[in-house]
Amino acid sequence: MKFKKHVFICTNQKDAPKKSCGTERGLELVETFKQELTKHGLQKDIRAQRAGCLDACAFGPSLVVYPEGTYYGNVQPSDVAEIVESHLINDQPVERLKLNF
Amino acid sequence: MKFKKHVFICTNQKDAPKKSCGTERGLELVETFKQELTKHGLQKDIRAQRAGCLDACAFGPSLVVYPEGTYYGNVQPSDVAEIVESHLINDQPVERLKLNF
Repeated sequence: MKFKKHVFICTNQKDAPKKSCGTERGLELVETFKQELTKHGLQKDIRAQRAGCLDACAFGPSLVVYPEGTYYGNVQPSDVAEIVESHLINDQPVERLKLNF
Repeated sequence: MKFKKHVFICTNQKDAPKKSCGTERGLELVETFKQELTKHGLQKDIRAQRAGCLDACAFGPSLVVYPEGTYYGNVQPSDVAEIVESHLINDQPVERLKLNF
């Protein structure tokens, strides 16, 4: 496995007036994840990156963490530090943001 | 796990003259995967979708299959049916295209 954890963040932009993760700050989330991982020196072990539609539009901004396949919804930049520390580093998913897929 | 398998295909486009997966037919790969999955009636169980840079630019067009985290490189549309049947349906990775990460 190239990465210990691999985070895919939806940055899909649909045409207005449809709501979509991209217009709901997906790219800001990607940048915040990258900064947080670098802060912990984890940028080579854990990757956070852009992705197209994750099929969870109703819950956006959404993301998925692999290899476990945990989906999160309504994620805000202020939630990123908690996801990184709790889930990505300590393997404790953040229950309040988890989607029950 | 929302999907039995989740395939992320790099469609990143760098500025010319740099080579990148997107300009090397990443989007064509996404469409070919979707068609192949639909042909097998698997479009709800297995998802193939666009992603940003997977950090395997030198081997593009590249993609990764989760939850196992198998990377493939130099994938052409003519390889997609084999990846779907061998790996996604029968759990036998296509060794000749696998990247040893």
